[in-house]
Amino acid sequence: HCAELGNPVPKEPVLFLKPTTSYLPEGKGPTRGPPGCTDLHHEIELGVVISGGGTNIPQESAMDHVGGYVLALDMTARDYQNIAKEKGIPWTWAKCFDTACPISEFVPKEKVSDPQDLNMWLKVNGEVRQKTNTNDMIFTVPYIISYISKMMTLEPGDLILTGTPMGVAGVQPNDQLEAEIEGVVAMKFTVGDKL
Amino acid sequence: HCAELGNPVPKEPVLFLKPTTSYLPEGKGPTRGPPGCTDLHHEIELGVVISGGGTNIPQESAMDHVGGYVLALDMTARDYQNIAKEKGIPWTWAKCFDTACPISEFVPKEKVSDPQDLNMWLKVNGEVRQKTNTNDMIFTVPYIISYISKMMTLEPGDLILTGTPMGVAGVQPNDQLEAEIEGVVAMKFTVGDKL
Ligand SMILES: [Mg+2]
Ligand SMILES: [Mg+2]
Ligand SMILES: [Mg+2]
Repeated sequence: HCAELGNPVPKEPVLFLKPTTSYLPEGKGPTRGPPGCTDLHHEIELGVVISGGGTNIPQESAMDHVGGYVLALDMTARDYQNIAKEKGIPWTWAKCFDTACPISEFVPKEKVSDPQDLNMWLKVNGEVRQKTNTNDMIFTVPYIISYISKMMTLEPGDLILTGTPMGVAGVQPNDQLEAEIEGVVAMKFTVGDKL
Repeated sequence: HCAELGNPVPKEPVLFLKPTTSYLPEGKGPTRGPPGCTDLHHEIELGVVISGGGTNIPQESAMDHVGGYVLALDMTARDYQNIAKEKGIPWTWAKCFDTACPISEFVPKEKVSDPQDLNMWLKVNGEVRQKTNTNDMIFTVPYIISYISKMMTLEPGDLILTGTPMGVAGVQPNDQLEAEIEGVVAMKFTVGDKL
């Protein structure tokens, strides 16, 4: 979704960390913006679950380190992110708050024949907001795994979000979010008040 | 050390995450910059170890959540950090690489009567580079704990680095780093080649 935010398409993936405390499994309550947030956005993303850790993983064998997938939302406080970009500081307030990472149930690798050919969509209150096929991803799953592992050892259980398509937009308390990887997994979340 | 890098002193703490894979306990090998790094810096910091988790922790009871301390180095690829600041992207390549967080042995809380009155120093090849008392910290330990927990639930075992004094500077392979909280804990690390 770089184009719609006026960002250049990056030559390399832009990496940031979300803490495990930001996980929100389906059924565990609403997703909520951080204190003071006035512009909470949804970003639907394919999540890749690492089963075999490693450092300097070659692209060629990267898929051997994948145990499966989740459908994930990279919930983002766009107001805090814009402030952070302007100041040149990390995106922590924008990306790392409790409930910032709603996730579906785990999908074992065997259920996905090609992770770069999945139809995904996100609806807000029944209206499609984001719709994509993962063949549109800027960087492939093996590329991202290899890229991260050059700098940071990957461990079993790590979850990598792989970027979002166009259509990111603000949500309000009580909005109903519904997302699906077609034929693979679906999930529903409600938006709550800010933390 | 904001002044020496030409940064304004922040009104609120600037938060970022380091992954647990960046921990480097003393005796477990050299600290190394990320691939391509040409300006690896040391930042000596008091580390606070959380023993009791919580959300929205008031400053008044924040110290009840502290189990102890470590002496820590927030090793920073200053070249990558400068690029990230300029681009407005997160500091991941600058802060999150393997070995980016050398730490001393654990110091139980009982051994530190006042965390805001500790003399700390860092020597490189025997020469003092950073020297401070923790009463110079911009934000106190209770303030930082309370601030983070407004947005992100703290969990037992979390380590919070609290910022570095002036004197940050580059290191080279084979440099010997020696740091101490006077009368409390000391540690030594060697700088290795980049990852
Ligand atoms: Mg995203
Ligand atoms: Mg630091
Ligand atoms: Mg500082």
